[in-house]
Amino acid sequence: MESIALQDIQQAAERLRGIAHVTPVQTSRQLDKASGASVFLKCENFQRVGAFKFRGAYHAISTLPPEQQGKPVVTISSGNHAQGVALACRLLGRKAHILAGGLTSQIKRQAVLDYGATIHDAADHLDAERKLPALMAELHGVYIHPFNDPWVIKGQGTVMLEFLSAVPDLDIVLAPVGGGGLLSGTCIAAHGIKPAVQVYACEPAGALDAMHSVRENRIIPMPHPQTLAEGLKTSLGDMTLPILRKHLAGFFVVPEDEIVPAMRFAFERLKLVVEPSAAVALAPLLRRESVLVGKRVGVILTGGNVDLSGFFEQLTG
Amino acid sequence: MESIALQDIQQAAERLRGIAHVTPVQTSRQLDKASGASVFLKCENFQRVGAFKFRGAYHAISTLPPEQQGKPVVTISSGNHAQGVALACRLLGRKAHILAGGLTSQIKRQAVLDYGATIHDAADHLDAERKLPALMAELHGVYIHPFNDPWVIKGQGTVMLEFLSAVPDLDIVLAPVGGGGLLSGTCIAAHGIKPAVQVYACEPAGALDAMHSVRENRIIPMPHPQTLAEGLKTSLGDMTLPILRKHLAGFFVVPEDEIVPAMRFAFERLKLVVEPSAAVALAPLLRRESVLVGKRVGVILTGGNVDLSGFFEQLTG
Repeated sequence: MESIALQDIQQAAERLRGIAHVTPVQTSRQLDKASGASVFLKCENFQRVGAFKFRGAYHAISTLPPEQQGKPVVTISSGNHAQGVALACRLLGRKAHILAGGLTSQIKRQAVLDYGATIHDAADHLDAERKLPALMAELHGVYIHPFNDPWVIKGQGTVMLEFLSAVPDLDIVLAPVGGGGLLSGTCIAAHGIKPAVQVYACEPAGALDAMHSVRENRIIPMPHPQTLAEGLKTSLGDMTLPILRKHLAGFFVVPEDEIVPAMRFAFERLKLVVEPSAAVALAPLLRRESVLVGKRVGVILTGGNVDLSGFFEQLTG
Repeated sequence: MESIALQDIQQAAERLRGIAHVTPVQTSRQLDKASGASVFLKCENFQRVGAFKFRGAYHAISTLPPEQQGKPVVTISSGNHAQGVALACRLLGRKAHILAGGLTSQIKRQAVLDYGATIHDAADHLDAERKLPALMAELHGVYIHPFNDPWVIKGQGTVMLEFLSAVPDLDIVLAPVGGGGLLSGTCIAAHGIKPAVQVYACEPAGALDAMHSVRENRIIPMPHPQTLAEGLKTSLGDMTLPILRKHLAGFFVVPEDEIVPAMRFAFERLKLVVEPSAAVALAPLLRRESVLVGKRVGVILTGGNVDLSGFFEQLTG
């Protein structure tokens, strides 16, 4: 398998310049006080489509080889990757097809449709996987995997390039782990620039497959993950596992009952709208994990796509 | 009455340096598209205590004359000014007393108490005003008005100094109007630096007293304002009325049913937690007010203190 280097991520950053946002880094006295650390928040909730996923999707689609130019792009996703692919295709003048199980959020559906993509509904993720071959054959499409794709990983790695450019002296970086695409890019970028920085994966206890997979060095999927952090239910892939195994300093397991309080801290104290998956990377700070105390800790706030319709209905109601 | 000059606001900025946050200015492609303008958001929701009010409160308390040093500080507020006074007093080593009618939000109460202030409950604002003389006599206190105070106005004016320093070529500035303290400071700072910039007040239709007051050049209180924008229910004061009358380019009246959609746009698209009062200044952009189209428009997002307990209870539900 091709190995990804810092230079690949730097090239991805060139390609994304002026297209993806260079998201701001924020700090908070209240968070520093609560955690005992100096915390820096890389706000990918402010990224286009509301999540870092746009970076990888755009990078992968924009670098497709010439023989795949013009082919429709297909992906399986009911989450932020779907929006990332849809927007990237719109910007690149391509047709996007989103195969999705359980794309029930009206706002996410509408966003994908607004970008001009076609949604193919499936009963669930498994059903979507079953339907993929026929759809690919019908469309003569090119498939963009949400994370197990070197071009996606390179795109996601650009988050960390920007982060270390804004805050060069980070000791530790925290990011949530689902399929490991963001985290793989983060590890390669971080260690390419500053080998001493420690990268930790934050994983919800209800979807604790990545930690076991990395420890046993084989992909151990979790059959029925149960977590509010929808985006983190996926298992690692064969590209992300070896990268994480090589680079990670460790895992923080986040019990389910720490996710909503971390989200609430973000909304109420930081005034940031973050989704549950992003809150997972805040939680270890809020419980004052001892290895973080006194350190300069970077947190990747991965996204802000959360269904707020209930709240706004209450407000108008 | 003493007149406030740009130089006073610059001195206030010196005093607030390192104490109040220099809040970030954000932009959004989606907002630009929705409004047809180039919009810059001055994010005072990221200010300490979650609102611009900290600036004025700290400035006024820190500049009290020597004969008032050591006296406890008293104010009437059930909103952000209460938190601003409470934090300012804690930082300055003074005792704060908050006289409040309807300080029912548990999170706001707790914030004020956490800063070490004492809360004196009143039935409502009128009752608080009735109780004030006795409390002042008992405590030998010094009263800090939420807006009708030159030192408060100078402090609030520092928002605009920072804004024009970050974005020098604004054509128009939008800010919500309640008592007019922020808006007065904004006008003086804006016109002191750039006389051509047009400052508009945004006022909810359910509390439309400032517009009538400015037009008729006398304070016309609204007996029973009805608006979700709690912070904008107050009437102008005798210091803020002449400043607004001299400087304002005009008013945008915001119907009540535009407030929640504007908040929703901020949460869902901008990923920013804003309170209803702040959303009032976004609303004219979202309805594409013709004078704003094609212009470089600055919006002061005044605060982010909104009760989200219902939402988080649903989530944990």
